[in-house]
Amino acid sequence: MHTAAPVPGSAGTPSPDWPARTATLLEEVRARSPLVQCITNTVVQNVTANVLLALGASAAMVDVTTEAGPFARVADALLVNTGTPHPEPRAASVEAATAAVEARTPWVLDPVAVGSLPVRTALAHDLLALRPTVLRGNASEVLALLGAADGGRGVDSTAATDEARTAALRASDGRLVGAVAVSGPVDLLVAPGTGVVRVANGTPLLTRITGGGCALGAVIAAFAAVTPDDPGAAAVAGTVVHTVAAELAARDAGGPGTFQPLLLDRLASLTPDDVVRVARVTTESAPSPGTEPAATTAGVRP
Amino acid sequence: MHTAAPVPGSAGTPSPDWPARTATLLEEVRARSPLVQCITNTVVQNVTANVLLALGASAAMVDVTTEAGPFARVADALLVNTGTPHPEPRAASVEAATAAVEARTPWVLDPVAVGSLPVRTALAHDLLALRPTVLRGNASEVLALLGAADGGRGVDSTAATDEARTAALRASDGRLVGAVAVSGPVDLLVAPGTGVVRVANGTPLLTRITGGGCALGAVIAAFAAVTPDDPGAAAVAGTVVHTVAAELAARDAGGPGTFQPLLLDRLASLTPDDVVRVARVTTESAPSPGTEPAATTAGVRP
Amino acid sequence: MHTAAPVPGSAGTPSPDWPARTATLLEEVRARSPLVQCITNTVVQNVTANVLLALGASAAMVDVTTEAGPFARVADALLVNTGTPHPEPRAASVEAATAAVEARTPWVLDPVAVGSLPVRTALAHDLLALRPTVLRGNASEVLALLGAADGGRGVDSTAATDEARTAALRASDGRLVGAVAVSGPVDLLVAPGTGVVRVANGTPLLTRITGGGCALGAVIAAFAAVTPDDPGAAAVAGTVVHTVAAELAARDAGGPGTFQPLLLDRLASLTPDDVVRVARVTTESAPSPGTEPAATTAGVRP
Repeated sequence: MHTAAPVPGSAGTPSPDWPARTATLLEEVRARSPLVQCITNTVVQNVTANVLLALGASAAMVDVTTEAGPFARVADALLVNTGTPHPEPRAASVEAATAAVEARTPWVLDPVAVGSLPVRTALAHDLLALRPTVLRGNASEVLALLGAADGGRGVDSTAATDEARTAALRASDGRLVGAVAVSGPVDLLVAPGTGVVRVANGTPLLTRITGGGCALGAVIAAFAAVTPDDPGAAAVAGTVVHTVAAELAARDAGGPGTFQPLLLDRLASLTPDDVVRVARVTTESAPSPGTEPAATTAGVRP
Repeated sequence: MHTAAPVPGSAGTPSPDWPARTATLLEEVRARSPLVQCITNTVVQNVTANVLLALGASAAMVDVTTEAGPFARVADALLVNTGTPHPEPRAASVEAATAAVEARTPWVLDPVAVGSLPVRTALAHDLLALRPTVLRGNASEVLALLGAADGGRGVDSTAATDEARTAALRASDGRLVGAVAVSGPVDLLVAPGTGVVRVANGTPLLTRITGGGCALGAVIAAFAAVTPDDPGAAAVAGTVVHTVAAELAARDAGGPGTFQPLLLDRLASLTPDDVVRVARVTTESAPSPGTEPAATTAGVRP
Repeated sequence: MHTAAPVPGSAGTPSPDWPARTATLLEEVRARSPLVQCITNTVVQNVTANVLLALGASAAMVDVTTEAGPFARVADALLVNTGTPHPEPRAASVEAATAAVEARTPWVLDPVAVGSLPVRTALAHDLLALRPTVLRGNASEVLALLGAADGGRGVDSTAATDEARTAALRASDGRLVGAVAVSGPVDLLVAPGTGVVRVANGTPLLTRITGGGCALGAVIAAFAAVTPDDPGAAAVAGTVVHTVAAELAARDAGGPGTFQPLLLDRLASLTPDDVVRVARVTTESAPSPGTEPAATTAGVRP
């Protein structure tokens, strides 16, 4: 029923070696320790800060009005997550995103549970209008947010990653957003210049803890800080680092409880070699509307 | 000084085999993965979500007005916890509970620290008037809330579980609530049709972490989702699962810190056989006012 | 450029044996289990409560107006942390601190990220005017807050612990505060009667998790509850216990993730002998303006 949109910017561009590039960017994040401002839901504030600190970045939860905007001008990146949209952080989100755009601070929008819930949905649309550097969500959230902007299908459809692919391609082509990260069993990253990239790492345990996806938004923001002009690279590298660390942590975990501290340990200890060895990244090489994408694989299964 | 009220519904009803029934309900929770809306205090939001996810349920912290009510109509269960009663979640609590009642969504009230603190006490009484499916608290909280409704003794008395028993029997008999779960070293579950059930599992470590009791409220809500017409069964089964998992986790813990991830692991890995083998449940078999209750024991000490 | 201020109260006072005194105070905390009211940022509420519970104290996050003030009158100690200064807890902070002063409840001010951020900076100055029992922060925060009160240098200077030392000496001498705890690789505790004490325990992992410092504020508050008339002793003992537990936990940690549960385990299991054996505490013995302080060492390196 839906047709695949053309992949912007992919014609003639050789597929970058994403695992190697991710490894390089990881070292940059650690060397520069970007300060990531987080306006995120109260459920995951703690794990979000801890993920950033484990990664080697810095975190600041500056989420009140009159502070949020000025801080977004000096922060290295901003994360806005709509999970618990209380009045104060709601106003702070818009203030911060507006300031981020003016100051060219890269920022990530994570529209948690957007769709039928009215407060966060209105907020997410207001934020989308400010053109986030990266939009991150699961397929349902991405479709709900971009589908409406696109005049397309709503959240009540069974959202699949491939449907979100189409919406993401249109949104990033039309520059609604710099890049789109669709999280799922296989993560889908879409951006002009990057094309469509799939990351097949991770673990089902990421769905058995709260904040697995929310923390990914923060990781992508940290990577956006070191590659602000290439949102697609930030989306891919952040996703690879987060899901590779999670996959390695899961090997030693006894369940969702012990998985969480082990994930933080892995984020802190992850080596460039780990990334290159474990990452499973594919890039659509010759996309055209309506055809099955061909794929090249970078990275070797462990 | 106080006399034991008659146990409603227990005359002539054979004691169910609670460990076996709990094991069955646990499998139902995992099979149906009920969506539990949580309006809970900010201290324990994270652990509450993680406990639900580990159990196999889903969690959604929808706690802003205009979202909370509509969501309570479609959620499988609702938890309202008064621990940090800020204005927005306070209003959202009443909105959600009202909608839950209308939509027949089972809901659990956890009146944290109710008694002398005025904001949460007023809120808890407003919520109690909506007749929660299950009321969960420690003996002091249950007495403070039901004692006033009952014209009885206040929170300044030394609250013991057996005093709370009397108040719980009256409240559930008079249908102020569907069931009462009084948490303590031995948990006391009271409901019409269930009578008075005691669960002797658990570990002192549950009192050395924050959220041990708050998370139990969420677990009971998840069980209420699969047995909405039997609040007593939800209270018993939720309590058994939570305290058995805690007891097993404590065996491997080095203290309150490592206990927490191990508790989540155990909630995720708990088997029906674990429940039947470890649960220590007693039921008052022939209660009458003023007499010592006889007890039958189901489940064998490990 | 700056000169060292005289150390108030240290002349002629023999250096107490801080490790031994800390060990005694730790046993008092456990015996009395003081109730510590916490008005703290939402990022660290959970870990703050868990640190207090692991230590053997009790925690209550009472942070709404009309509850916060009355509770501060009956609590054994109060912690006010400005990390997420939303309107409700902001008002509750002032209400609680005012009541704490009136009721002589010892209280700790932790002015997180004070300096250029306007909301928390104004709040922290309002709170400082109420003369906290202990002021805890890193050097930048202490300088930003006391520097302005002192007419001295601002937060934009490169804040070092020794600069904070001067500001702390003046503030505690002039009774702006009862004691100042400056956190860093070596913690600096300053109070009349105590002089300048340095604690060299800890681990870099404390900077790789969120809440490492915030939790220390809560620990100091718990100690202030058992030694309300000696703020310096509370600051030293709280710092020693927290950093010794952290140092021991770090030995077994695989990274910042596993460090956190192990820190809680260590806080719970820490023995007086652990404290005496591991603590590295030095006291300025003969301070005079502009000279290098001589130091005596109490405690032996492990």
